[in-house]
Amino acid sequence: MARANGVDLYTLIKDHTDGFSMDKAFYLEPDVFEADLERVIIPAWHLVDHISRIPDPGDYFLFELADESIIVIRGRDGEIRAFYNVCRHRGSRICREAQGNVRLLRCPYHAWSYDLDGSLKAARLMSDDFNADDYSLHACHIEVCEGLIFVNLTQGTPPDFHEQMAPMLSFLEVHGLPNAKIGHRASYPTEANWKLVMENFYECYHCLPAHPEYCEVHPKDYVLALGGGEGSGPIESLIDYQPQLDAFNKLADSMGHPSGRSEEEENTPFLRGASRTGIKPGYLSETRDGTPAAPLMGKFNDWDGGYTGVTLNPFFTMLATNDFATLFRFIPRDAVYTDVELIWLVHADAEEGKNLDTAKMIWMWDETTIADKTIIEDNHAGVLSRKYQPGPYSRHEAGTNEFVRWYLDRLTETA
Amino acid sequence: MARANGVDLYTLIKDHTDGFSMDKAFYLEPDVFEADLERVIIPAWHLVDHISRIPDPGDYFLFELADESIIVIRGRDGEIRAFYNVCRHRGSRICREAQGNVRLLRCPYHAWSYDLDGSLKAARLMSDDFNADDYSLHACHIEVCEGLIFVNLTQGTPPDFHEQMAPMLSFLEVHGLPNAKIGHRASYPTEANWKLVMENFYECYHCLPAHPEYCEVHPKDYVLALGGGEGSGPIESLIDYQPQLDAFNKLADSMGHPSGRSEEEENTPFLRGASRTGIKPGYLSETRDGTPAAPLMGKFNDWDGGYTGVTLNPFFTMLATNDFATLFRFIPRDAVYTDVELIWLVHADAEEGKNLDTAKMIWMWDETTIADKTIIEDNHAGVLSRKYQPGPYSRHEAGTNEFVRWYLDRLTETA
Amino acid sequence: MARANGVDLYTLIKDHTDGFSMDKAFYLEPDVFEADLERVIIPAWHLVDHISRIPDPGDYFLFELADESIIVIRGRDGEIRAFYNVCRHRGSRICREAQGNVRLLRCPYHAWSYDLDGSLKAARLMSDDFNADDYSLHACHIEVCEGLIFVNLTQGTPPDFHEQMAPMLSFLEVHGLPNAKIGHRASYPTEANWKLVMENFYECYHCLPAHPEYCEVHPKDYVLALGGGEGSGPIESLIDYQPQLDAFNKLADSMGHPSGRSEEEENTPFLRGASRTGIKPGYLSETRDGTPAAPLMGKFNDWDGGYTGVTLNPFFTMLATNDFATLFRFIPRDAVYTDVELIWLVHADAEEGKNLDTAKMIWMWDETTIADKTIIEDNHAGVLSRKYQPGPYSRHEAGTNEFVRWYLDRLTETA
Repeated sequence: MARANGVDLYTLIKDHTDGFSMDKAFYLEPDVFEADLERVIIPAWHLVDHISRIPDPGDYFLFELADESIIVIRGRDGEIRAFYNVCRHRGSRICREAQGNVRLLRCPYHAWSYDLDGSLKAARLMSDDFNADDYSLHACHIEVCEGLIFVNLTQGTPPDFHEQMAPMLSFLEVHGLPNAKIGHRASYPTEANWKLVMENFYECYHCLPAHPEYCEVHPKDYVLALGGGEGSGPIESLIDYQPQLDAFNKLADSMGHPSGRSEEEENTPFLRGASRTGIKPGYLSETRDGTPAAPLMGKFNDWDGGYTGVTLNPFFTMLATNDFATLFRFIPRDAVYTDVELIWLVHADAEEGKNLDTAKMIWMWDETTIADKTIIEDNHAGVLSRKYQPGPYSRHEAGTNEFVRWYLDRLTETA
Repeated sequence: MARANGVDLYTLIKDHTDGFSMDKAFYLEPDVFEADLERVIIPAWHLVDHISRIPDPGDYFLFELADESIIVIRGRDGEIRAFYNVCRHRGSRICREAQGNVRLLRCPYHAWSYDLDGSLKAARLMSDDFNADDYSLHACHIEVCEGLIFVNLTQGTPPDFHEQMAPMLSFLEVHGLPNAKIGHRASYPTEANWKLVMENFYECYHCLPAHPEYCEVHPKDYVLALGGGEGSGPIESLIDYQPQLDAFNKLADSMGHPSGRSEEEENTPFLRGASRTGIKPGYLSETRDGTPAAPLMGKFNDWDGGYTGVTLNPFFTMLATNDFATLFRFIPRDAVYTDVELIWLVHADAEEGKNLDTAKMIWMWDETTIADKTIIEDNHAGVLSRKYQPGPYSRHEAGTNEFVRWYLDRLTETA
Repeated sequence: MARANGVDLYTLIKDHTDGFSMDKAFYLEPDVFEADLERVIIPAWHLVDHISRIPDPGDYFLFELADESIIVIRGRDGEIRAFYNVCRHRGSRICREAQGNVRLLRCPYHAWSYDLDGSLKAARLMSDDFNADDYSLHACHIEVCEGLIFVNLTQGTPPDFHEQMAPMLSFLEVHGLPNAKIGHRASYPTEANWKLVMENFYECYHCLPAHPEYCEVHPKDYVLALGGGEGSGPIESLIDYQPQLDAFNKLADSMGHPSGRSEEEENTPFLRGASRTGIKPGYLSETRDGTPAAPLMGKFNDWDGGYTGVTLNPFFTMLATNDFATLFRFIPRDAVYTDVELIWLVHADAEEGKNLDTAKMIWMWDETTIADKTIIEDNHAGVLSRKYQPGPYSRHEAGTNEFVRWYLDRLTETA
């Protein structure tokens, strides 16, 4: 209807005004989504789950992205591997169920059977020149880092995961995720382009009007200065918040916990970062009354009221207090649909009714993500209008502008 | 599938044979619908509702057309205005509910707040060079005429509403619509191109086989001569009906009520008209037994058994007896989907159970429009066939042929 | 998403490797489906039903294919005819119900009325130069053969039905289908390209892993040698099975029943064939325990344990034992959706509860077709992957390779 036709990506990028939201074509056009897929989504490392989902040999689950179904499976040797869920014979899906345990990866169509390492073990009645070694399952790039499983759908060599994650590693490590378990998970399917989802995620300008729960557990100065992440707020808010930040840093340092933020060189191609800040004074956790919802995780021996954020490129973010970690997974599906999934991790020994209160733990981000779904879908609806035109970001949306710059750079460097 | 591909609008128009239905491309092709949007639908004035829907300051409702959501709202000064439901910040929808009452138009995303006249009153934390005057809501063209609210989505200067409505005004005025209220409303979503809907509306060739209810309250001579509007019937039917028409005109004139029809010059770009005729002899209203369903409206002091028709360009029609007015609103949604909405207006003092019988009032047009929905959808299904080819209009479908001529002229004058 | 874009059919055909499954474009692209429609689906004769569905004059049913609705109707003279369900006036569907009995084909829109032979009998108020003879219903090509009704949507002269069916006729005739009735029918809508459905149908490599019911009633040697039809198995399986086949042929010959297979010249443009083989030794019918589910049909005076297969081009197949015939009808709907319908025919005198056990009769093919639906849909899902590439057919998939060759030849001869 009112959508831009005959999109010329070069022109769209060239005509973008820094400090403003983007042209509607970026949010609506299937052609732009194809470019996003090839240049941003496929090249990215995507969090797929926590290792505790598949503890035993033969345990697997499926991860779906960009028309692909990926089998993530633990081998007999304990290693976690990933394979495309595509039989080398005539292409059938091999695993039908979203998760399970198998002894072999046996295709239900013609019974071609693969070992858990992907090698073809059996294929009946093939011609004499058939060589089973040529028909192993296609492996998918995979990395396991601090208990988190990431995959990458790049068809050739993917970007170096360790290079991307290096500066943030110490912020992750303290939370002891390899010894965690999944406390809860929830999905928030959002009918809007993934960039409208990310623009929402990287600013806290909307927190005061739209997120009373968030503003209940985070001090107003923090919301203004850092609510949308490092550099997301106006300078005067940062100055106002600095004393509180200094106090937190001093406390964290005294307890031997990480503080401050990850170092970043200028002009990296990464949208990433890690930092620790304090939640509301007197609060121990990101819960309604500030009391913990779960036992201390990882290397924390006592509560420091800290809040760790780790973001990667930009589809994965972890936000964690001393007692639980909330993982954000953003999965673009098509030009106007994005899956948002949250996974809450707790100490492996946490037990509901004993030292774990799941409802209390998920309250804030569950309420907030439900509200964001509506907000983002309303944003999408408005962008359809002939009258929509890029509007100016406030001084509280610097993080969002940073995301847009990063996104346009990704398109430009390969355009 | 069997649809025309590579539509060339010039060729399609050139190849049309007058007196026949149109090529299937006109009824099926998204490209033709795009042309219809730009050349016919967007330039038209569309009835959106009656003023009584928003009696108080701050009352609003939303109207949706062509990917747009329009806020129609009454200001503190009593004026009714229309705005695009698009925040000037990042484009979010401002009003989420289909109707309501507000003190300010406050965007739920970042709380940019607009006065009821559309001016931006508050936007937090903008940079110093931000000028709120540059960010008023986009106004939408609006006209209020005899209690009816019309909007126009033309992006520049719209066609002159008053010029279009002038010849029909006296026929409208007698019904006292500014002092009416909404008695009932109903929707008839129709899965077919809007032109198949209009072709159905402008002929009564199908009334005898398909609309027993209609034929119960209108005399057969009228159905044949004028059932599809002025000039819709064959000449011998007009001659047959003339004595009845003369009798009605004489009665109406004697009572000081309007009669006859609106004057029209040759070759105007308007598909419009107004007229008064009689319903079935002895009937006072368009009801099953001919007795009134509601009190006399407007300037009528006594029953004249008359039937007023007013049509505009061609998405709005009013058909009214002395006691109620039925408004027809046709809203094209896409190439193969059209919303049909009927609104029944009655005197503001009418009261259900006292002097208003809603079921009796809506009976005829509700039954008839339900039947038309099926008829039109069957027409659509047949047009999909490889064997469909334009067929000849009967002498009872002159009104439909007139509509097709008008439509093709609209495409041609701007093609 | 991951689909081939800018499909060049010549290149796709040229790049195909014999003995492998096809490029994903053949299974996914709407453009290829358009080519399939024009070159394979429209030119084919399609089974629509059995004559017993419309025993009396005026009985009709609708058949839908490729945006067309076809009226198949028995005339007052007892002849069965087919017409496009498109009124010659403005294109409306004439018959709304999927089946019924009518005295005239009367369009519900404007009451144009056609005789059961398609001639226009009544059209009110047409201009003087209107000639009803010019407005008969468009006839659709139709053939009735052994009680089976076939139609063809070719717009000009269709391929000769009798030439296509001739070699298989004697295999059909013995089953006495003109004197049969419909025992049961069932639909298996399958979300996959029609060629994935056919590839599944023409091989029995998947029968052992996926169809325990089928393998219960057919001997393993048969499954390997002939399960996917003539020439579908490896040569050593044919040799292994030959003694059983010889025994059946001898028995059938001694009883005067058809045996062996239809003769075929080299390089015909037909994908067709007929043959008779034996079911499991000791079994009389294709039922779980091998006992009959219905009385003997046609010219069979005693049970020979035989199994007749007749296939035509490739959307129709009949598989029949002495007591019932299972008809397979494959109807491609779009690039990724196919309707599969099964019709079971029994002797006209069969009576449920007396000499007919419907549940017993349908068991094997109902269970098997339900399983195939899942298998084929999983195949479709895998073909979407970037990693899908044509895989090698086993020596047990020769029938499928034959189908692919035939299909590519059809595209090539008209490409």
